[in-house]
Formats: sequence, structure tokens, C-alpha cells
Amino acid sequence: MQAKKSDRMPETLVRRLPAYYRQLSELEQEGLTEISSFKLAERMGLTDSQIRHDLNSFGGFGQRGLGYRVGMLKNSIGDIMDINREHSMVIVGAGRIGSAVANYPGFKEAGFVVTALFDIDPKLIGKKIGGIPVLDAKKLQKYLAETGTDIVVIATPASEAQQTLDHVGGTKIRGVWNFVPITLTPPEGVVVINVHLTDSLMALSFRMHEMDVINEGHPWTK
Amino acid sequence: MQAKKSDRMPETLVRRLPAYYRQLSELEQEGLTEISSFKLAERMGLTDSQIRHDLNSFGGFGQRGLGYRVGMLKNSIGDIMDINREHSMVIVGAGRIGSAVANYPGFKEAGFVVTALFDIDPKLIGKKIGGIPVLDAKKLQKYLAETGTDIVVIATPASEAQQTLDHVGGTKIRGVWNFVPITLTPPEGVVVINVHLTDSLMALSFRMHEMDVINEGHPWTK
Repeated sequence: MQAKKSDRMPETLVRRLPAYYRQLSELEQEGLTEISSFKLAERMGLTDSQIRHDLNSFGGFGQRGLGYRVGMLKNSIGDIMDINREHSMVIVGAGRIGSAVANYPGFKEAGFVVTALFDIDPKLIGKKIGGIPVLDAKKLQKYLAETGTDIVVIATPASEAQQTLDHVGGTKIRGVWNFVPITLTPPEGVVVINVHLTDSLMALSFRMHEMDVINEGHPWTK
Repeated sequence: MQAKKSDRMPETLVRRLPAYYRQLSELEQEGLTEISSFKLAERMGLTDSQIRHDLNSFGGFGQRGLGYRVGMLKNSIGDIMDINREHSMVIVGAGRIGSAVANYPGFKEAGFVVTALFDIDPKLIGKKIGGIPVLDAKKLQKYLAETGTDIVVIATPASEAQQTLDHVGGTKIRGVWNFVPITLTPPEGVVVINVHLTDSLMALSFRMHEMDVINEGHPWTK
């Protein structure tokens, strides 16, 4: 059975889960063991009722008036996101995007370990990028079948992205992290999260423009 | 006057603007000149009333029953995001994150041009990364004052990120793109957009876990 869209947690809540986790990690590093929902809300730029509402979606983790135990809440949110274990990833496409992802620090520390890159270019196959071997793309499906790979990162040229995703659909892989800035149709049972870095720059440009529009008193509407 | 938060467009809408732009660019490449709100909605996984509502926030761009003119709507959304002009960016921090950003393809084609990297490491200063010169971080404020730089990318160690942001606050820069996975406090009049790539991986991990939870009929709530 395919998970129904209607049963899924709202995107806005899912975006906040890693932010909670990061905030709780920072609190832990500061040596705090307990925090009130009010204080947590203040640090995160949310309201405390929003935090209670978010956490109640997963059963709730605090006692009214007592606040949250930092380590326990961090651990619970880690369990909810299933990040209290290691994930292994492969990157399809060893060009500039794939190399940047392979070289990007922080994934490994967060428990997301890249085990291989795949490419069709004979000049790249056999090389290493950021210490990670580049393998022949023809061997991708065999590799996915024989290893415990959790996540496939798509970093191919745009013209190859949908085909790569379709190939992944025939394997046991259920998670795809897509860096190719086109609209992809996920196969059934595969979750695709898109990283469109240029979109983020465009959003920044919009917010800068919006600041001018508001400050100058120009309405958007004609 | 600082733009009031209440006057700002909702985050969910702002996230959709680049998606509209990308979809309209794809339609243009396919040679389509007109599209109904229904067809556009279908391609974007939205409802047509949601699209009309989004576009009405900026004054509306279609005539009921006639649909949208692809090129004109793309151009209008480009104007709203202020991306129909070139933006110039500098990257502070020429380590692994800064280098990955400097090497990342696609920004330049989207009109976001990196003109310089800045670092404190004498071994890096004077070198080039992805063809872009690494300059002495001491010269950052002078550079920002003398050039038409629009956006500062923060890719420093976590311990330096807030200080870098504070320095930017004293310049004419109003846009910061932050790659450092910590919570930063923006100076007045500066928009900060955070790129937390690990958050995106965590969201993917959550969605994979959620698929299991739903398929197995296990509720999140205790």
C-alpha cells in the first residue's frame, strides 16, 4: 500500500523538525538539561502554542508547566526523523554538482555517509572524489541490490534525471535527494526531496525586493 | 523604517515563486505560449484556485477563461523576484563549503555571479577557486563599500558566522545567504536565508520513516 498524501505531516511541520533538533543540540552543547516551551519558542522564533501543537502531532513530550528535558526531546525527535542511525547514500553523477555534494562537510557528522559516486564518463570511473570512489553507472542497480544503501542522490545532467529516478524505482531504495533543477515524477513508493539551490537564491532576491516595496509603501497589487 | 513582518508574503508562497518561474521556463522551452490555470496547476501539483490566489497576491496576471501567457507571466514573476537583472555575490569563507558554493554550476546562468571569496587563511589568499579570486577577509568591508555587491554568502566556521553577519550589517548589503548550520540573529535591514542542507536530508529521512509508519498502520501518537 502506498502511503496516502492525506496522512502525511504538513510540509511546514516537517521543515521545523530539523530546526528543533538543531536548537536542542545547541542547548545541549550549552549544558542546559531542561527548557520551558516558552523559552524554546523564543529561541526558535515560534510561539509556545505552536511548539506544543507540533510536538502533540507525535504524541507530546512535555508535562504542562514542567517544560521539556532537552536530551530526551532531542532523542525523540531524532527517532521521529529516524536519524539516530546511520544512513548510506550514493551519488549518481560525478560532475560539478555531484562533486560538490561529495565534498560537502557535515553530512557524515550528521550520520549520512556517501559510499560511492556513479558516472558514465570513462575518464571519471575509477577515480576518487573527496575520498569516495567513482563507479560505472552501469553497475548502479547491482550495487543498490547488494548493499544497504538508503538514499540515492541525483546529480546527473537534467536530461538523465528522470531516467535515473525511474531506475531507482525498481530497487529497494525509497529515498531520493534530487539536485537537478527540473520537475521529476517520483515512482510509487519513492520519496523525492528536491534541493533547488537557485530557488533559495531567488527567494532571497524576492525578500530583498519585498523589503524595498514595503519600506517605500508600494503595494504589490496594481 | 524596517519592513514589518506582518506585511511580508507567507513563506509557503515565497517558496512557490521560483517553482512557478521554473515551470514557466520549462513550458517556454517546450514552445508553449499560453496555458490554462488548470493545466499549470496539474503540472505543479497544485489546485488552480491556489494558483489564482497566489498570483492575485501580486495583482493577478490572467483573464478568467483565457489562461496565462507563458512568457509574460514568467517575466512578471521574474520582476516580482527581481531576478530579471544580474546579482553579484561574494562568499565569506573559502573552505569546503565556500569552495563547493563557488564551484556550484547554475548560479551564474540564473544571473547570480560570484565575484570574490574572502578568507583569513594566508595560504588561500591570492589563490583562485573555480576561477574566482580569494581575497583577504580584512578587505571585506572595503570591497562591499566600493563594489555593487548585492549578496554575501556566509560559509565560515560556525564560530565566526554571527560576527561575519554583524559586520555585513554595517554595510549597504541587504541580503545574506547563510550556509552555516546554526541559528543567526540578522541585523536590522538585512534579510538572511538559511541553506541547511543537512536539514533537507533529515526531512528526507523523516518522509521515508513516515511512509513506513503510515503503511504499517502505526500511529505517531502514543
